[in-house]
Amino acid sequence: MKRAVTAAVAIALASASLALLADEGMWTFDNVPRARIKQQYGFEITDGWLEHVRLASVRVGDGGSGSFVSPEGLLFTNQHVGRGQVAKLSLPDRDLVRDGFYAPSREAEIACPDLELNVVVSYEDVTARVQGAVTAGATDADANAQRKAEMAVIEKACAAGTGLKCEVVTLYSGGEYWLYRNKKYTDVRLVFAPEEQIAYFGGDYDNFTYPRWNFDIAFFRAYEGGAPAKTPQYLKWSKAGAAEGELIFTPGYPGSTARLLTVAQLRYHRDVGNPLQLRVWRSRRDALVRYASTGAEQARRASAARLGLENSLKRLVGQQDGLLNPRIFGRKEADEADLRAKVAARAEWRRAFAPAWEEIEHAYAGLPATAARLAFSTLSASRLANMASTIVRYGDEMKKPSGQRYPEYADARLEGLRFGLYSPAPVYADLEEAQLAAWLEEARDALGAEDPFVKAALGSLTPAEAARQAVGGTALAAPAARKALVEAGPSAIEASADPLIALARRVEPVIRELRAWQEERIQSVEARAGQKIAEARFAVYGKTAYPDANFNLRLEYGRVLGYEEGTTLVPPHTTFYGLFERAAAFGGKPPFNVPARWRDGRAKLDLATPFNFVYTADTIGGNSGSPVINRDAEICGINFDSNLQKLPNRYLYIDEAEGSRAVGVHSAGILEGLKKLYAADALVAELTAPRQ
Amino acid sequence: MKRAVTAAVAIALASASLALLADEGMWTFDNVPRARIKQQYGFEITDGWLEHVRLASVRVGDGGSGSFVSPEGLLFTNQHVGRGQVAKLSLPDRDLVRDGFYAPSREAEIACPDLELNVVVSYEDVTARVQGAVTAGATDADANAQRKAEMAVIEKACAAGTGLKCEVVTLYSGGEYWLYRNKKYTDVRLVFAPEEQIAYFGGDYDNFTYPRWNFDIAFFRAYEGGAPAKTPQYLKWSKAGAAEGELIFTPGYPGSTARLLTVAQLRYHRDVGNPLQLRVWRSRRDALVRYASTGAEQARRASAARLGLENSLKRLVGQQDGLLNPRIFGRKEADEADLRAKVAARAEWRRAFAPAWEEIEHAYAGLPATAARLAFSTLSASRLANMASTIVRYGDEMKKPSGQRYPEYADARLEGLRFGLYSPAPVYADLEEAQLAAWLEEARDALGAEDPFVKAALGSLTPAEAARQAVGGTALAAPAARKALVEAGPSAIEASADPLIALARRVEPVIRELRAWQEERIQSVEARAGQKIAEARFAVYGKTAYPDANFNLRLEYGRVLGYEEGTTLVPPHTTFYGLFERAAAFGGKPPFNVPARWRDGRAKLDLATPFNFVYTADTIGGNSGSPVINRDAEICGINFDSNLQKLPNRYLYIDEAEGSRAVGVHSAGILEGLKKLYAADALVAELTAPRQ
Repeated sequence: MKRAVTAAVAIALASASLALLADEGMWTFDNVPRARIKQQYGFEITDGWLEHVRLASVRVGDGGSGSFVSPEGLLFTNQHVGRGQVAKLSLPDRDLVRDGFYAPSREAEIACPDLELNVVVSYEDVTARVQGAVTAGATDADANAQRKAEMAVIEKACAAGTGLKCEVVTLYSGGEYWLYRNKKYTDVRLVFAPEEQIAYFGGDYDNFTYPRWNFDIAFFRAYEGGAPAKTPQYLKWSKAGAAEGELIFTPGYPGSTARLLTVAQLRYHRDVGNPLQLRVWRSRRDALVRYASTGAEQARRASAARLGLENSLKRLVGQQDGLLNPRIFGRKEADEADLRAKVAARAEWRRAFAPAWEEIEHAYAGLPATAARLAFSTLSASRLANMASTIVRYGDEMKKPSGQRYPEYADARLEGLRFGLYSPAPVYADLEEAQLAAWLEEARDALGAEDPFVKAALGSLTPAEAARQAVGGTALAAPAARKALVEAGPSAIEASADPLIALARRVEPVIRELRAWQEERIQSVEARAGQKIAEARFAVYGKTAYPDANFNLRLEYGRVLGYEEGTTLVPPHTTFYGLFERAAAFGGKPPFNVPARWRDGRAKLDLATPFNFVYTADTIGGNSGSPVINRDAEICGINFDSNLQKLPNRYLYIDEAEGSRAVGVHSAGILEGLKKLYAADALVAELTAPRQ
Repeated sequence: MKRAVTAAVAIALASASLALLADEGMWTFDNVPRARIKQQYGFEITDGWLEHVRLASVRVGDGGSGSFVSPEGLLFTNQHVGRGQVAKLSLPDRDLVRDGFYAPSREAEIACPDLELNVVVSYEDVTARVQGAVTAGATDADANAQRKAEMAVIEKACAAGTGLKCEVVTLYSGGEYWLYRNKKYTDVRLVFAPEEQIAYFGGDYDNFTYPRWNFDIAFFRAYEGGAPAKTPQYLKWSKAGAAEGELIFTPGYPGSTARLLTVAQLRYHRDVGNPLQLRVWRSRRDALVRYASTGAEQARRASAARLGLENSLKRLVGQQDGLLNPRIFGRKEADEADLRAKVAARAEWRRAFAPAWEEIEHAYAGLPATAARLAFSTLSASRLANMASTIVRYGDEMKKPSGQRYPEYADARLEGLRFGLYSPAPVYADLEEAQLAAWLEEARDALGAEDPFVKAALGSLTPAEAARQAVGGTALAAPAARKALVEAGPSAIEASADPLIALARRVEPVIRELRAWQEERIQSVEARAGQKIAEARFAVYGKTAYPDANFNLRLEYGRVLGYEEGTTLVPPHTTFYGLFERAAAFGGKPPFNVPARWRDGRAKLDLATPFNFVYTADTIGGNSGSPVINRDAEICGINFDSNLQKLPNRYLYIDEAEGSRAVGVHSAGILEGLKKLYAADALVAELTAPRQ
């Protein structure tokens, strides 16, 4: 249906384009704003460029990004993305987190216990199929189930036909569904990690700040069939990096934004959801701190998880600060009011879309009363207890056909699920017990002794007793035991006398009931109403927006740029000088101490070499490890953080004029450090070899 | 009259001591809180220590501080305090501001044109005499005149009896009057000044910020009878400086606080006075920027005045931000409410003091309507026009007996007045004309063409014509011409046909009328009511407070201490590393460029040497150049700035917990720079010689 552009539409388009004036957006590869980038930067993105970048962009584990940087499977990511693996490869007498690691030869590379890499080799719009699976007159809950079943069917058929890992991804709150086909690597080996103290120099204090001086890099290598994987679509290295003002891109897997949420949903986040999440993470962090305080080895064991929680907490505090800021919240209210007013102004839009906001508001009205139960009814505070929960759930789900299971237990996902369950990474029983005991105590405090989850978990025991009994008596610490139980199948799992399995089995009905409640009462409404709002947005503004981030492949762009803070200027990059300044200014007190290698090797460095740098790309957690590339798709650095100004960008784009910046390690500083301090000649040679 | 301490008084004392918990206060030397310092830091201040420190503490010019640091009259201050003199000693082919200066021998030292140093050699409480001079039943205006006359009498008698420069200083808004006897030095010579780019590295951007890397030091030498002055009470140098947490003091001449003002007065500052002052300074700054843009030599001529205005503006913006902050203003309101409630609670206090606040509020009600006239009716935007005004006023005042003149024209002050008028510092007619023209234009815009000052200044001319006529035709650029006119006396001044004198004469009646209005309607009320409020404070809290700063000698104390900012830590000191970091991070772009001497001499420096540092002392503008000394009265550094957090401290003490800090150059960094980069061996030897 063709229409003349009316004045109202013209204004809507102008306002939509105004909303994108800055370097905004986490764009899917099918909808990169090429015209806009060409207009602003004079760079024309070709299909070939996009394909090359996509095939070099790697999802690292569940929540990180990386890139191939040699034709031989060399993967470039952050130390803090690889930290979990490095910790799992560490032993009391081999602390690779503290001391770092470098394999000068292929033979010296160490296999990671459970690191999975994925590369999107192709993708396809399946919106019509998924939305078309809903039968006429279906309830919200039925429609939700029908969509999920159809997604499972699509994934299974894809996996069977291609041998690839296939995922149907929901975008625009259900406005679009896309099938992503991933090539997966599970034989991944550690090549290089620096001492954590230089990767994370300044610690939690400097986290989410800039200027920074962090060597937050790590290299792994993907193997196939016992040999380095062939990765012809790799990114070359730029020794000079990017100049101030230069266009850069950060392809990667941004984790989670909530920019398309309605104001009602945001109010819930602000007033209930975020405060609860803060309590959950603080409780877990505090448990780790208590455990770590009992000894040096305990501190080592708890370190990676603790840092991860500190990082999450600081980020969430920053995000919540954004929601609590009336100016920022006011912008969200104004945006929604604008869209709703435009919808209301045209009869067919009003009929189709207007009720969606009220439906969400109505559904969310019932959420606060159940929110604490949803947050605390879980065993995920302990890795081992969480695996027990997964095994119990696996047993129950496997009794059903694939399409009727929880999506994460559909046939196409089972291989990845088992990969995690069978991980040989070391399990420390005392740590698991401490975490589980603390969690059960916190859950009891939060929910009360009469709560169904608490009663099921504790029975007549104290939290400490329940944790000791479950963890002390379990055999699941051994990967072989987990594997044997899973392979024995549902009835064996049901019959298992393992006390941790027993605990998981006792709480499982409560968890299932809550999940069902949430899916029926909240998610199904969100899915249908969210789809309507997405359609309203497409109708009013056109497809000028990007979907909320959800750990799937995106492309962000921007430029290297310093900024103003207070009354003064923050530079576009830092240098090695600043590292030694900050260390000397604090007299080398932790967390401002530099490792011995850096302290003693200082004279070898050209101190004026760029070290960290900032740019305007619209990144978020999950983009950690994203390569920062120039027009020639060369590595200018690696993304590892954002500054505080940027944290509220979970909920809306924070303009570069407000000083929001992503922070990366500079390609020149990386080479300087690898060459001069780590004598990583083979690695440097591989990175800087002429293109084959 | 002795009284039992009632519960109310006990609470009042507790609250007064609470108000002083931190390192607060700019204390007069007669009322240093010795008990409190002993309690907090375990250091007992003796009379001898105080006398030694006082005799080494120097007022530099009108608005700066300094200290004697050798027995031979060597004066230590900031480059930015001495900048005006260094600029006056510069010529087109000898730019000492840009290039710096070092005199390796006495003979090479250059005499300053008009720098006056003063040291308080003794002081005396004259409150009873000044307050006692007011006759019973005198009106406010008469009482004011009587007090001023008595002050002039005291000053004159003192000067005649001692040969010293004597000043009666008003403290506590008239609650106390003290006679300060000063030893004056007018033969002062330049010994050392660094390149301004390193003294003011980071320029206006970094001004009032920290971390900092400024070599803001200068050395002068006082002479007497053609030989270096004997200054046995000098401060020794501490090569190590002060450690974090260490007690330090900053004796000096803090300029101007307004902490004892009533809420009504503060509202006037916030809503009328400060906005007007900002307009005045911005207008003057803009005129200088326009002039400077016409050429390199013009830029050099305007530089010192422009930087001074930028500095004043940034400071006033920070102060005004404090007043505009409801939390800060609320504290002032609460403090006043507390005092007034306590006054109201006792009948004799209520009778004596309660009306004072209302009288001030009433007087101030009439101020806004005249405020713009008071601000703009002046010729002080041009140094030369200002001297013409001074000469005209001098002619008029000299017809009266000393006690009836404006206080600054009393006999005891005339020598200093003439010293300024006869200054041989170069006058640039084009600069003076540009400043005067811009000012007259701004005054006309602000006051309107029919305003008396504007009409008197311009007649039928445009601002540019009036300025050209007055400056173009004046002979006053020559010091000798000014001296001749002053010495010829009142009737010659009255008869002078010099067009700048003529301009000053035309506007003088307007200026006098406004001054009389302000003295009668505002200042006399402020004086009497302010004295009452001061008495109320003494009555309620005891003498536990310090008077507002007014460019007279004070002692502040505190400790070296880093702080938190945002989520991270700011270190207690910086090092030379950071200087090169900041320069390299901005690619050496101004104002982040280092002078060639520093760039090329970098390798000579121990980069880990402390450079700048921060401490909690309660300083303010005027403390620039104050020595930062330890318990042994040794120089640990020199005060040169405050951070932004501290700026609202004009109106109230900003607690150290809010990150308010004073900023100094570290004694170790000073020696390192002087030795390694300036080869100032003789100066270093003089600073570090064993005590004689």
